[in-house]
Amino acid sequence: MRSKQLPHREETEEKALPSLPEDEIKITYIGGGAREWPPKLFRDLALCSDIEGEVALFDLDYESAQLNAEFGNWVQEQDGAVGDWTYTAVEDRAEALEGTDFVILSTQFNPAETFVHDLDIPREYGIYGAVGATIGPSGMMRMMRTVPVYREFGNAIQEHCPDAWVLNYTNPLTVATRALHEAFPDIKAIGLCHEVFHAQDMLADLVAKYYDVERPDRDEIDINVKGINHYTWVDEARWRGIDLLTIVDHHIGQGDGLREYTVEEMADEDPFVDNNQVTFELYRRFGILPAAGDRHLVEYGTWFIQGDMPEDLNRWGVKRTTSDYRAKHWNPSESEQTTDVTAWMEGETKFELAPSGEIAVDLMRTLTVGDSMKTHVNLPNTGQITGLPEGAVVETNALITPGSIKPINAGPLPRQVRNQIQTHVNNHETMIEAAFAGDIDLAFRAFLNDPQVKTLQTETAREMFAELVATEEEYLQDWNLEKSEVLAESEAFDN
Amino acid sequence: MRSKQLPHREETEEKALPSLPEDEIKITYIGGGAREWPPKLFRDLALCSDIEGEVALFDLDYESAQLNAEFGNWVQEQDGAVGDWTYTAVEDRAEALEGTDFVILSTQFNPAETFVHDLDIPREYGIYGAVGATIGPSGMMRMMRTVPVYREFGNAIQEHCPDAWVLNYTNPLTVATRALHEAFPDIKAIGLCHEVFHAQDMLADLVAKYYDVERPDRDEIDINVKGINHYTWVDEARWRGIDLLTIVDHHIGQGDGLREYTVEEMADEDPFVDNNQVTFELYRRFGILPAAGDRHLVEYGTWFIQGDMPEDLNRWGVKRTTSDYRAKHWNPSESEQTTDVTAWMEGETKFELAPSGEIAVDLMRTLTVGDSMKTHVNLPNTGQITGLPEGAVVETNALITPGSIKPINAGPLPRQVRNQIQTHVNNHETMIEAAFAGDIDLAFRAFLNDPQVKTLQTETAREMFAELVATEEEYLQDWNLEKSEVLAESEAFDN
Amino acid sequence: MRSKQLPHREETEEKALPSLPEDEIKITYIGGGAREWPPKLFRDLALCSDIEGEVALFDLDYESAQLNAEFGNWVQEQDGAVGDWTYTAVEDRAEALEGTDFVILSTQFNPAETFVHDLDIPREYGIYGAVGATIGPSGMMRMMRTVPVYREFGNAIQEHCPDAWVLNYTNPLTVATRALHEAFPDIKAIGLCHEVFHAQDMLADLVAKYYDVERPDRDEIDINVKGINHYTWVDEARWRGIDLLTIVDHHIGQGDGLREYTVEEMADEDPFVDNNQVTFELYRRFGILPAAGDRHLVEYGTWFIQGDMPEDLNRWGVKRTTSDYRAKHWNPSESEQTTDVTAWMEGETKFELAPSGEIAVDLMRTLTVGDSMKTHVNLPNTGQITGLPEGAVVETNALITPGSIKPINAGPLPRQVRNQIQTHVNNHETMIEAAFAGDIDLAFRAFLNDPQVKTLQTETAREMFAELVATEEEYLQDWNLEKSEVLAESEAFDN
Amino acid sequence: MRSKQLPHREETEEKALPSLPEDEIKITYIGGGAREWPPKLFRDLALCSDIEGEVALFDLDYESAQLNAEFGNWVQEQDGAVGDWTYTAVEDRAEALEGTDFVILSTQFNPAETFVHDLDIPREYGIYGAVGATIGPSGMMRMMRTVPVYREFGNAIQEHCPDAWVLNYTNPLTVATRALHEAFPDIKAIGLCHEVFHAQDMLADLVAKYYDVERPDRDEIDINVKGINHYTWVDEARWRGIDLLTIVDHHIGQGDGLREYTVEEMADEDPFVDNNQVTFELYRRFGILPAAGDRHLVEYGTWFIQGDMPEDLNRWGVKRTTSDYRAKHWNPSESEQTTDVTAWMEGETKFELAPSGEIAVDLMRTLTVGDSMKTHVNLPNTGQITGLPEGAVVETNALITPGSIKPINAGPLPRQVRNQIQTHVNNHETMIEAAFAGDIDLAFRAFLNDPQVKTLQTETAREMFAELVATEEEYLQDWNLEKSEVLAESEAFDN
Repeated sequence: MRSKQLPHREETEEKALPSLPEDEIKITYIGGGAREWPPKLFRDLALCSDIEGEVALFDLDYESAQLNAEFGNWVQEQDGAVGDWTYTAVEDRAEALEGTDFVILSTQFNPAETFVHDLDIPREYGIYGAVGATIGPSGMMRMMRTVPVYREFGNAIQEHCPDAWVLNYTNPLTVATRALHEAFPDIKAIGLCHEVFHAQDMLADLVAKYYDVERPDRDEIDINVKGINHYTWVDEARWRGIDLLTIVDHHIGQGDGLREYTVEEMADEDPFVDNNQVTFELYRRFGILPAAGDRHLVEYGTWFIQGDMPEDLNRWGVKRTTSDYRAKHWNPSESEQTTDVTAWMEGETKFELAPSGEIAVDLMRTLTVGDSMKTHVNLPNTGQITGLPEGAVVETNALITPGSIKPINAGPLPRQVRNQIQTHVNNHETMIEAAFAGDIDLAFRAFLNDPQVKTLQTETAREMFAELVATEEEYLQDWNLEKSEVLAESEAFDN
Repeated sequence: MRSKQLPHREETEEKALPSLPEDEIKITYIGGGAREWPPKLFRDLALCSDIEGEVALFDLDYESAQLNAEFGNWVQEQDGAVGDWTYTAVEDRAEALEGTDFVILSTQFNPAETFVHDLDIPREYGIYGAVGATIGPSGMMRMMRTVPVYREFGNAIQEHCPDAWVLNYTNPLTVATRALHEAFPDIKAIGLCHEVFHAQDMLADLVAKYYDVERPDRDEIDINVKGINHYTWVDEARWRGIDLLTIVDHHIGQGDGLREYTVEEMADEDPFVDNNQVTFELYRRFGILPAAGDRHLVEYGTWFIQGDMPEDLNRWGVKRTTSDYRAKHWNPSESEQTTDVTAWMEGETKFELAPSGEIAVDLMRTLTVGDSMKTHVNLPNTGQITGLPEGAVVETNALITPGSIKPINAGPLPRQVRNQIQTHVNNHETMIEAAFAGDIDLAFRAFLNDPQVKTLQTETAREMFAELVATEEEYLQDWNLEKSEVLAESEAFDN
Repeated sequence: MRSKQLPHREETEEKALPSLPEDEIKITYIGGGAREWPPKLFRDLALCSDIEGEVALFDLDYESAQLNAEFGNWVQEQDGAVGDWTYTAVEDRAEALEGTDFVILSTQFNPAETFVHDLDIPREYGIYGAVGATIGPSGMMRMMRTVPVYREFGNAIQEHCPDAWVLNYTNPLTVATRALHEAFPDIKAIGLCHEVFHAQDMLADLVAKYYDVERPDRDEIDINVKGINHYTWVDEARWRGIDLLTIVDHHIGQGDGLREYTVEEMADEDPFVDNNQVTFELYRRFGILPAAGDRHLVEYGTWFIQGDMPEDLNRWGVKRTTSDYRAKHWNPSESEQTTDVTAWMEGETKFELAPSGEIAVDLMRTLTVGDSMKTHVNLPNTGQITGLPEGAVVETNALITPGSIKPINAGPLPRQVRNQIQTHVNNHETMIEAAFAGDIDLAFRAFLNDPQVKTLQTETAREMFAELVATEEEYLQDWNLEKSEVLAESEAFDN
Repeated sequence: MRSKQLPHREETEEKALPSLPEDEIKITYIGGGAREWPPKLFRDLALCSDIEGEVALFDLDYESAQLNAEFGNWVQEQDGAVGDWTYTAVEDRAEALEGTDFVILSTQFNPAETFVHDLDIPREYGIYGAVGATIGPSGMMRMMRTVPVYREFGNAIQEHCPDAWVLNYTNPLTVATRALHEAFPDIKAIGLCHEVFHAQDMLADLVAKYYDVERPDRDEIDINVKGINHYTWVDEARWRGIDLLTIVDHHIGQGDGLREYTVEEMADEDPFVDNNQVTFELYRRFGILPAAGDRHLVEYGTWFIQGDMPEDLNRWGVKRTTSDYRAKHWNPSESEQTTDVTAWMEGETKFELAPSGEIAVDLMRTLTVGDSMKTHVNLPNTGQITGLPEGAVVETNALITPGSIKPINAGPLPRQVRNQIQTHVNNHETMIEAAFAGDIDLAFRAFLNDPQVKTLQTETAREMFAELVATEEEYLQDWNLEKSEVLAESEAFDN
């Protein structure tokens, strides 16, 4: 490693004393016009009295942000609201970011014009992704659309609020977070995701099942987390100091844990259903417990999705999230993932001011005035996982205290798991490099190296790539499509 | 790095469920006949009600351990004692260790026969160590005496209590801890030391001085710790999120912080006096704050002890701990560092059951039934400090939860500081290798590389080394002295 | 990396002067009863007059070694023989090795009992290896048979001839060489293979095709070699300083270079036929030129062998080496790969004393009395390829001078190629670890991680593995088959 | 290490064939007005018939370059000259560099205004450097003057001749070479130095002394070279395969090798005298043979120059090169290091056309049309020395072939030697960073970390630094002297 000199502190005689911290903060929400996450945040803020301040909502759909601002202020007035927050929709992104303390990033392209094609086109080539958000040809396309945007966010944060903490929730989480750090190396940005909580919940359930105790809260399940987002692993798990992996062994050994599912059984299930069969299978295969939902895991363990479909996938209790489902996602009337804030405000639906289970507010509170908390975060590797490259965004626990987020050393991964993760890290790093250079042919190198794409001959993969690029060309304006030799050679892309 | 395969879990169908944890534990104290630390531990245990059990005291001086056991049981009966502990002196080390949950290591050779020579002989060669416990020719000799003993401890722990947590307090802390890990790589051993608390206390004082608030507790001072024991550094320090290094800049800039001391002023001072002048000087020199007492720091910043003595040392408000002082250390009637437990038990001295300020009991409590705590510990490097070799014992923060101690990522050191620490790491690793092989000539290579010794011509250093070895030969029985070419060439060692 | 202390030289006053080198050497050939390689070596030795000595032939088939010894001595008497060599068959391996200067390792298990099953059983599971010697389920089985034997060789060399140079020709070359180094870390062993010469020959052909010059000798083609055996790459190639990769670009661009082959065309081709189509395809895909025969390359670029067979393979001008072909290999009357030395000695076949094109004799000559030579060798990584683990056996150029073989720095690999190689390195290291521990379940972890096996569900892969192990059990006596949980769970292995 | 993606080759269909190489080349000599090196080069070129072309001489002293051009053309006409070269003095640097094939860099500041102060000022502070060109306060000053200039050279080469090979002879060799690579990362620049030849000559002498053979040529002494320039080491040395380090052991053991020198004995010696006493002492101390002149070695082994002077230095058969001597260096009438080309041309001095012993012409010949050669060169570390940072300029052997220079893997250094070298690497890297940023206070951090300076208290070192900077201010125009807090605090620098 080419060692870096740390900046030396400037010593000036009249160094002013810093003032004592204030509890009043500014939060900027990029993508603040959405209906899924913002209402959860507003509830948690309303229930938090340690910090207070303003929340600036920015969205390309300004009207939607305005409605959310109205809703946020309405929530403040409901029974049980103890926080003191003012919500504003801000039309100019620079203004929204200026001098803010926290930036929340949660954005999405119109799925009907992007994600739907990400899923449908690869199917024609025999590639059957279950989620398609972070891996596979669809994950690769999403990276290609997202990295240029997050580079721009990184630059804007450097200009308007370089000291702000940045909480990124957007997928593909790893490369979006990585792009922020590439654009602005001193950025204080982390990526946050729920998936690991599933492992904690599953383990808490097992404790309740096998011991005569009340089900512990997921926070009481102490796990050592290591990997990359959506392919994270747990090699130590304890509750009150007892080894929970032994309980998993027992559970699987009992046979309670393992079973097969049929296509019929799965037909009416929600696409988010999780039966832990892939989790247990991977645990047996690698000797380390995966900590993500089964629908994500099958995409990384590519052998699950290379056989006869949907039988071979359903057998593990997993369903594919269809493109139909995705297309509806932006339509509140059709999707369960959004909320109807007007209905709440107008009293059509009963509003309950309950905690959301999300940790964003806890994090902001701890970073400002709190004591300390431990949770899993996505951060550039600075040694927390040995054997993975420095700078790659990885997921491990971190300790959060006021003004500080420090990753906790998670140690190495078993070789076979590390090896798979190295593949994705290689692809992420190549995608970042390609996107920052606008080099579509370098992006194709990463595309070819994706484990799902790697089953195809080069020329087939090229046609699929060209078809995807041609279909979503509008969203790839930051790339030098004309200079591409790969596209020039393809039939699918009209040059 | 030659990558290691993690052991794979054995999957057996009848995997038994682990039983729920019990609060009853066994603690084994090696060096349990001493009078300085054990009484502190006994007090803290008496004040702790979360865990309970037995304490086995082992000491080469069995009678002294018996007296301590008697005292320990007496403390349990005093007012305010809430713990439930039984103390026993155990004559056989294996028996003391058998099946224990915690091993405390705190041992010392008779200073009159060892440490006194460590200090006096180098003085004849112009080397003027201030402490002499971990660096310099005296530190090197101490390593040579200590490593073989700690290898033996490591082996015994592997045999009798492989799952025990091992808390080592013995100097030279780094190599003693390193020897335990070299002897038994799966040992759960950490090294513990007070010095970093000084930095936290100093910063807490500055907060009280410059702000209109009550002096914070040292635990409220959140610092990022990195280095090796006695040469540890802090590059981030916060209280309620505000940057305390800016306050240090202000303090030094005010001029309040800096002054010079005379030989006269220092004459009657306690050798442990600390005026923070070396701390501030090193902070200015390297742009990062050292976190150890000034008397340790001058030994690592060798330029402090190479001029006219004692003027050049006293000027920084530091005194040398003399060999006279050290010789007294084992004599309770002469040393303030020991206690008179008989006087307490017989009522000659008033006994007060107050917390000691030590963290051993907190650690044991947290590892057993506690929530979590953060403190600085010495552990083999697994990525917590980038730029230092894997496996070298380094000092950083760690997060402790029941059943787990995980180092927190501290990041890299500035080049000039890292460079000095690399020198010591090199010496430690060489000393470990030499001691495990009994190779005195390899030990001499490390000896020559010590920054204090490095000022001497090779032949002068050889004579000093040979004189030290000859004088302390009795304590170096694990080394192949006869096969040494270095000693054979010297005049000081009679072959 | 945990840094290693170099051994320090012992300084003794009466250090004797080394004597001047002699030209008389001893060569030991393990596997010296074979009919393919030994006759080539004998010819080259007969044509070499710089060194002389004895050649000890060891083979489990002692009679075959005796026949070869007779033949070797006979070659010495032919016209044109200038060397001075005495051949002896030695029945005891220890005696053959004792005090030797060079060990040649070239051994093989009876293919009819091993290799044939390696190829046929995976076919039942849809896996279609082209060679099957170093990768895929068959390569994995070969590793499992070979590593224990090469560990034993390493131990024997340490005991009987620790200073000897060891030239290993046995496949799987990488792990066999790696096993020697694991068994005896100071062994002076390299792995040698022809494949890279193909790239040099192809480039020499292109020079002759496009320039008005005589075809250069392959040695004049200066290439930078990096990778692992059978998956080696060239990122610089020059002849008289001109860039040959530009000529490859031109050749491919001309269209001369690229074409498709039909099943009919390939039907009567020799299995060793090589049309460079895979070479050129990979060059286009990765931007770096592979330097191994196409039949090896398709096994590493797994997408070549996952489609319809044999069409999809033949299309690239490549054929599969069938198990029938392999079975014949030990039978001189049926195989073209062996020779009939009796026919030569009895004059039935005309014997010609011509150089073989092999480099073993050149190497031995250079290591003894020569000037210097550069060639590609397989050696543990000590920095020659950055980005691959230290200690993994890799293939790069090396400079050979009397008494020394030093790898030449080849630099890093492009990410996508490095990533594939990391997979194999991981598998090799895991196999070494598994074989040294006799741990069949750990071997199965590596087996599952093979890119060809990775397309199968875990349970299918387990059955294939168990079937292979059961069939070749006789050759796996060094493994703890009874303790295996994987085999216990399978139906194919009768426990 | 943050892995780098290799650039991918652009594939274009009409890729033109490269033309066959020509023997006609252009050489540009920066510093071509000097009188020491250029005449040697001219002789070697006149004796070389494989390559031919033009030589452009550039010097700030244009007239001196004109005289050298005249001399160069004159040499071509002398008896025995077989080369075909045309020499021209070029006034514009850009023109001199434009399209050249080889750049030779050999420049010097006026020693009377620079080097003399480098030596004299530190003496006032008790620092007694023997050479002062690459280490110590004088070496540090030279780095500070040189790096900005070599950054500019790097930029100019990138602009005018990016494909040229660059041979740098200027001290401080390591940082000058490093600055070129920092300015233009794709530069094909190496640093070249004689010192290692001394070790080969010494070993050749020992062969002749102890064996009944003719003294071998230094090229026949095969050594493994590793370290940094002027502090390079040899851990393997062979002649015809026999181990020469054993002969060194024998030589030292005989007592022939070791003796002490007096001040009187040394009084009249040339400052370049070398008695190998330091070489042998360091060999005994570290177990590895240093390969640089003793006068350089004492500067790196600081204990040699910290005692009573000159006794303690002379005792090792070494003299200090005085500032008087240095001041004369630019004056041909006073210095033996320069030549009088006019005297040659006018026949006043007899001119002999003999090889110089320098390797520059061999290198250029090999890189153009040659076969191959091995020699030691200074290059950024890409794995040739494990345990030193990537990118640091290190000295090892390299293999040179037409169009290629590849370092040969030298392996690790013993810990104690590596540790010293890490110190210098840290200082070099810090100096590069400081110079490229113009940050004088960061340069002072490196200055303080120099082993010679490290003996001083910070404030003393600061005064010495400020005095040096003030005296040589004219040569430090690329640094932000006004912004320096270090200089602002000093008394020696008038702000």
